[in-house]
Amino acid sequence: MRCRVCRQPAVIDIRRHNANFCTEHFLKLCRDQVAKAIGEFDMIDPSDRVLVAVSGGKDSLALWDLLLDLGYQVDGLYLGLGIGDYSHASRDHARAFAQQRQAKLVEVDLPTDYGYDIPTGAKAARRVPCSACGLSKRHLFDRAALEGGYDVVATGHNLDDEAAVLFGNVLRWHTEYLGRQLPVLPAANGFPRKVKPLVRLGEREMAAYCVMRGIDYIVEECPMAVGNKHLGYKDALNAIEVTSPGSKHDFYFGFLSRAAERFRSQATAEQAELHPCPSCGAPTTADTCAFCRLVVRAGGQAPVPVQLSTGPR
Amino acid sequence: MRCRVCRQPAVIDIRRHNANFCTEHFLKLCRDQVAKAIGEFDMIDPSDRVLVAVSGGKDSLALWDLLLDLGYQVDGLYLGLGIGDYSHASRDHARAFAQQRQAKLVEVDLPTDYGYDIPTGAKAARRVPCSACGLSKRHLFDRAALEGGYDVVATGHNLDDEAAVLFGNVLRWHTEYLGRQLPVLPAANGFPRKVKPLVRLGEREMAAYCVMRGIDYIVEECPMAVGNKHLGYKDALNAIEVTSPGSKHDFYFGFLSRAAERFRSQATAEQAELHPCPSCGAPTTADTCAFCRLVVRAGGQAPVPVQLSTGPR
Repeated sequence: MRCRVCRQPAVIDIRRHNANFCTEHFLKLCRDQVAKAIGEFDMIDPSDRVLVAVSGGKDSLALWDLLLDLGYQVDGLYLGLGIGDYSHASRDHARAFAQQRQAKLVEVDLPTDYGYDIPTGAKAARRVPCSACGLSKRHLFDRAALEGGYDVVATGHNLDDEAAVLFGNVLRWHTEYLGRQLPVLPAANGFPRKVKPLVRLGEREMAAYCVMRGIDYIVEECPMAVGNKHLGYKDALNAIEVTSPGSKHDFYFGFLSRAAERFRSQATAEQAELHPCPSCGAPTTADTCAFCRLVVRAGGQAPVPVQLSTGPR
Repeated sequence: MRCRVCRQPAVIDIRRHNANFCTEHFLKLCRDQVAKAIGEFDMIDPSDRVLVAVSGGKDSLALWDLLLDLGYQVDGLYLGLGIGDYSHASRDHARAFAQQRQAKLVEVDLPTDYGYDIPTGAKAARRVPCSACGLSKRHLFDRAALEGGYDVVATGHNLDDEAAVLFGNVLRWHTEYLGRQLPVLPAANGFPRKVKPLVRLGEREMAAYCVMRGIDYIVEECPMAVGNKHLGYKDALNAIEVTSPGSKHDFYFGFLSRAAERFRSQATAEQAELHPCPSCGAPTTADTCAFCRLVVRAGGQAPVPVQLSTGPR
């Protein structure tokens, strides 16, 4: 097994590229794929201030590392979700990485700052934990970006994540979600721009990247996610990928190039209905936004309106 | 376990309906679901002459049985594909059923009538067997229907089949196929109308139907199909159905109601380009139709132009 580029002994094979790579050229491949995704979808301008959402897992730490190496101005944001030891361990990984790379880590703690945690919040709101968690994270990422004067929020969703989400949305033909499942969501209606620079890289590659770069990440899956549907969709796609390498890539990028546009009108119509939440100011189509309703049900502190950063942008 | 309808002991549970049924009410459910599909999609008029494509398997024999019971004028069509013992056995099942129900079975034999069989035809045309077979069947179903003066060709595709085909088309975003993956294709450009009355019933239900009705069908899968992608897609969807009963139904019917229309334009544009094949007269977008090219490559007899039935319709 030899590296496709230099013919030295290879350390990893990537079946969908039908190629093997040595450490040096694998790391280069990862950087090139991220640069290609950023360029292809116009994700980040060199002058942008980027906030990367960091969970302490392989994807978000690798993304932070890659964006720093590519020369972007990027800080990390860690959200404490109050999921017991898992949250403590993941925070420690995020802090250790920040210290090692001398990068800035912004921290928000759900129990301290908002008075609830994901396990009790989900129960109170009668949502599955992953739903309550996703909702909280989306709101707080936006808020932290706006308050910190960041232009872009970057998340570590990789190809496996995006293909699995797409599969879930297609299985139920959630046409409104299909219209906005894109690697870039432009800034609009009070939302910062959101980008997913890892869409050209798979889960296994991100783990290998961290190992080769000596990045110490939390290996365990979140304990609340065990048995969720998303993991079932990943399993189903993995089974197909084994027989037909490249299936996930073709599924996701084929969607972007040949199908996404067909679902756009609905998402655009929904966007036109957005107005500021009377409680926190975040854009919503409902009377009060879903986050504020969740916080109230969970018995937390009602969020105060977003304070836009007055500092230099 | 009791029947949802009569509370007598049940013999089958259908998880996606969250219900159990006795033999009598399960058979009624099957008839009702077929009648519902026929009505919902305007598949068959009582005055129509129907030709059901019969393979000797559970789906096509059950379909023939159900359509006869529902009072339609329906003959069977058996295509001998020259797949060794499998073809002989499946033909015997089709003949036995026809005799038992005193129904008319039209027979076409690929080796005798066209000078090739699927295994050698596929090799010669460098197609996977299922592709050469599907192509041959579609052509010869159309031809037999037109020559016999039938209004409709009915095939035994069940919910599992359609969901798996849809999954395959979505995985690769074959937008032109998505635009015509419908339970009814209207008669047009020399094609007879084509209908799939079993789309509301699953594979397991069709097997149970045959057992309860004493229909003796060929149980083996076609030996040429072993390991094909379609079976992989079925496995993937089955794994999801176990966790979320009703997923396949929602996937297929959600597509029909909320997505199919978005892919229609491409299929319509393709239809506008159809013209008669100079060799056999069947509609095609190419110079010579794919079937005639396959026959020539396989060294068979070039098909003669279709002779439209002059008998009463």
